[in-house]
Amino acid sequence: MACKADLMVTNAGQLLTLARPAPRRGLAMSDLGIVPHGAVAIAGGRILAAGPENAVRSRYEADDELDAGGRVVMPGFVDPHTHLIYAGDRIDEFELRLRGATYMEIMAAGGGIRSTVRATRAASDDEILSQTRRRLRRMLAHGTTTAEVKTGYGLDPENELRLLRLIRTLDDSQPVRLVPTFLGAHAVPPEFDGRAEAYADLVEGMLPQVRGLAEYCDVFCDEGAFTLAQTERILRRARELGLGLRVHADEFASLGATRLAVELGAASADHLVVTTEDDRALLAASGVGAVLLPGTAFGLGKKSYADGRSWVDAGAIVALATDCNPGTAPSESMPFIIALACRALGLTPAEAIVAATLNAAYCLNRAHEVGSLVAGKSADLLILDAGDYRELAYRFGTNPVGTVMVAGRICETD
Amino acid sequence: MACKADLMVTNAGQLLTLARPAPRRGLAMSDLGIVPHGAVAIAGGRILAAGPENAVRSRYEADDELDAGGRVVMPGFVDPHTHLIYAGDRIDEFELRLRGATYMEIMAAGGGIRSTVRATRAASDDEILSQTRRRLRRMLAHGTTTAEVKTGYGLDPENELRLLRLIRTLDDSQPVRLVPTFLGAHAVPPEFDGRAEAYADLVEGMLPQVRGLAEYCDVFCDEGAFTLAQTERILRRARELGLGLRVHADEFASLGATRLAVELGAASADHLVVTTEDDRALLAASGVGAVLLPGTAFGLGKKSYADGRSWVDAGAIVALATDCNPGTAPSESMPFIIALACRALGLTPAEAIVAATLNAAYCLNRAHEVGSLVAGKSADLLILDAGDYRELAYRFGTNPVGTVMVAGRICETD
Repeated sequence: MACKADLMVTNAGQLLTLARPAPRRGLAMSDLGIVPHGAVAIAGGRILAAGPENAVRSRYEADDELDAGGRVVMPGFVDPHTHLIYAGDRIDEFELRLRGATYMEIMAAGGGIRSTVRATRAASDDEILSQTRRRLRRMLAHGTTTAEVKTGYGLDPENELRLLRLIRTLDDSQPVRLVPTFLGAHAVPPEFDGRAEAYADLVEGMLPQVRGLAEYCDVFCDEGAFTLAQTERILRRARELGLGLRVHADEFASLGATRLAVELGAASADHLVVTTEDDRALLAASGVGAVLLPGTAFGLGKKSYADGRSWVDAGAIVALATDCNPGTAPSESMPFIIALACRALGLTPAEAIVAATLNAAYCLNRAHEVGSLVAGKSADLLILDAGDYRELAYRFGTNPVGTVMVAGRICETD
Repeated sequence: MACKADLMVTNAGQLLTLARPAPRRGLAMSDLGIVPHGAVAIAGGRILAAGPENAVRSRYEADDELDAGGRVVMPGFVDPHTHLIYAGDRIDEFELRLRGATYMEIMAAGGGIRSTVRATRAASDDEILSQTRRRLRRMLAHGTTTAEVKTGYGLDPENELRLLRLIRTLDDSQPVRLVPTFLGAHAVPPEFDGRAEAYADLVEGMLPQVRGLAEYCDVFCDEGAFTLAQTERILRRARELGLGLRVHADEFASLGATRLAVELGAASADHLVVTTEDDRALLAASGVGAVLLPGTAFGLGKKSYADGRSWVDAGAIVALATDCNPGTAPSESMPFIIALACRALGLTPAEAIVAATLNAAYCLNRAHEVGSLVAGKSADLLILDAGDYRELAYRFGTNPVGTVMVAGRICETD
């Protein structure tokens, strides 16, 4: 006798289950676990079974059925690196940069991270919430069902803690699941000009209050941001307090942050554009995720991207993220990141999809919960407007996501 | 006493009228004719007036009003170069290319233009229509209200004429206005292998039947396609028959097609990636449009783009187009092309918008009808999900177009 399900998604032309062990070093990234005529049985917001439709129907029956019409059914995207919560925009700076302004000229014109810090500090909670909700709606419409969100536009105890509370408010009030990260060490705020060490002290001092609100601590370790020594002491203190660790590593200069991420057992090292061969081998041999952010180079109009192919070939746990932020990557679309990663990073469509789902979930310590369609995980899934998963990479600039489901519920995406 | 309008679009935070003389050599491309608090009065599908809301209200009253909510109101996009009508896709070839396959290997595997020719010849009219309608719906949703559509996947008299008839069917049955171009000289079909001259004869022979169905004749003049001499004789014959002319020029090799376009008074020369300085100066000094197609280089994962900045600075009538086609640019989004053009071609957001509207309309000989918001033109307009026109270029990978209107009617875009 068949068991009862709440809902069955049927007639998936390609069901991408990604059913396989959690990612670890050396695991092939190209296996999507494709089932040709698939179905997913769902109850209580969780997956009961995902597999061949005949097999699923033999075990479950559901009052409600959602016919996928022969299209692709796959896990929702997991976006493991975003700076989603802020006020204002950086359009003026964007236009200055197009006209050839240098980083220093943009800073002098009031641009850069500090301009978003000014706008965010000056904004009310409601303004920040409503502006960020617009971005979350776009994320959801493009298939992202779980996203990491970093602070880093407050840069003082009051505003950093405010942003963490607002992330929680947003997590409770819309469908995208949010993973909060404290990035007090995003930039040195103007009131600490020339006193980066003193600001690093302040960030360390914020950590006990951050605990309980943030799940991760991140530091922007680069020239013009924080030194390796500052990064290390902040992250070590965060780890003592039980926070998970992430780090902005090797975006512009290779300062050793990738090695530090391995040494401290971080969840991920992110950017990795100028990583040395030795550091790549070290990270690939560890369990630390390698989060690549091609949207940032695209947004800046740069021609140099992380060497994604080498990262995959080295056996790293490669994930993709939007880096959604107002300065360098004003984009919420994981499908665009996949299309870009195949062209600019050398990933195959299958690798890019694994990087945008299961590996990204791993980097957020959510691989037990989301990132693949297997029994027990949350029923976070997409129906694409496509019959072949590779269309996600082939088409670009348009949204191939048709239906978005979070915890078994279809989301309104417009 | 105020005159009666059918509809008034009110409360445009930025109304981009593009009100200025039709583009000609040397005209600045950066003037969007921005009205800060604008309105558009519409009757019989045409614009009665577009300007400051107070001024428009003093002259017109309308029963229906559409509140733009302080957002950007602008002309619909004109996409002056697409290969929109075909059957099938080229996903297999896309994946081969990502794995490093050469053009010859792809051809050997059955890829390239010929694979789309096979699929198109084999498809029924209904299959071609329904597949192309899906692409037209995406175009419309991304704000394109007028598009050129080329044949070129039939490559025999029966199928080329069939495609022209189907373009007419599509033009009559959905909102995007279509401008039909005969591109019989897109590639040499397999049955003419090694007999390019004989195929060029056949194309010339098709021209009398093409007249009345196509508005333009185009030739793909490049290495591996048609020689300059073949291009010239086909275009000269087309001109004798009263067709307008366009030409694929300087995409891979500089064969002289740009000079030919000037000599023959073509409407546009398109691609222009490897144009010589002399040819650039010649085209810029003429009335021939320069259509740039950055989506093609993006789609192919290439790092070399047309030098858009130099084309604008030289005073050319620069237009942007998607080149939407299954092999190199499976994208219908003009907003993405604008975002890309600002980053990869060196255009400013204002220039890119002019290139995607008024200058594109000029290249299709439609500047009297569409491409700007001035009295007498068709009421083809967009309301963006943005208060600043530069967001069109700043954001990428998502769709900034909210509402699409063609001839005064709001279109369903989903």
